[in-house]
Amino acid sequence: MTETKLFPPAGDKAALEAGDVLTPRFGPDGTIACVTVDADSGQVLMVAYMNAESLALTIETGEGWYWSRSRGELWHKGATSGNVQKVVELLTDCDQDALVLRVRVDGAGATCHTGQVSCFYRRAPLGQKAADGPVRLEHVGGERRFDPAEVYGHRH
Amino acid sequence: MTETKLFPPAGDKAALEAGDVLTPRFGPDGTIACVTVDADSGQVLMVAYMNAESLALTIETGEGWYWSRSRGELWHKGATSGNVQKVVELLTDCDQDALVLRVRVDGAGATCHTGQVSCFYRRAPLGQKAADGPVRLEHVGGERRFDPAEVYGHRH
Repeated sequence: MTETKLFPPAGDKAALEAGDVLTPRFGPDGTIACVTVDADSGQVLMVAYMNAESLALTIETGEGWYWSRSRGELWHKGATSGNVQKVVELLTDCDQDALVLRVRVDGAGATCHTGQVSCFYRRAPLGQKAADGPVRLEHVGGERRFDPAEVYGHRH
Repeated sequence: MTETKLFPPAGDKAALEAGDVLTPRFGPDGTIACVTVDADSGQVLMVAYMNAESLALTIETGEGWYWSRSRGELWHKGATSGNVQKVVELLTDCDQDALVLRVRVDGAGATCHTGQVSCFYRRAPLGQKAADGPVRLEHVGGERRFDPAEVYGHRH
């Protein structure tokens, strides 16, 4: 585990909101939500989670590192697929319980494990009432940038 | 509580990822993460959480509704400040455990309770090593759009 000296304990509300020290508030599972966006287009690419170690590695290396909650392991995004994230800017929110990572994506330029540029490739229409039943999604993601079977084999 | 007939139980991995039915995977606390972005500039405005009721209200009314985890209550964003969110587009991610809301903000056009346009008004510089100690944040949010003391009184 990387030392977490980098992140002092959170202060009071005023320090959290107006202070100039990064004191991320990791949740009960030790992670903080991170929104990763394309630095050029602004498109939201993914929402993932970082623990202290992955956040420290992201800051130190300038590449996107996360904590995979499903696999329970440190995750260097793009290590398998080549779609490594080069970080342009890291932002924290007012109460320091969420991060934004602005990145440029290497390789095929895809972030989603399905081969899509963004994980957010489906739109839910608005205006539907609760009694109307299921909401039908529309695919808005365009063409895949890679074939997951080729890149990941049978793991996905 | 609004009926949740709107959201059937999640199917298997294939249905979640490639299906055309919105089956949001609310977490153990009944909420799902939502990234709210400015529909025009793409700027990330906030990260908040929705329960089934607030998501149903967002879809039905086309305005941003959330579940305030800190206050434990349904939250019509902008009801007090006038900075109501008009939803342009709602997206779900591959495994349906995160949402993106593309909005236009009414009123002063500010989303953060501090008066900033976005909750993400501070940048953490990159390149620092874990042993180097605290990360100093830079303010990148510009001028406040409103004075929280005037808008919220002493509640914030």
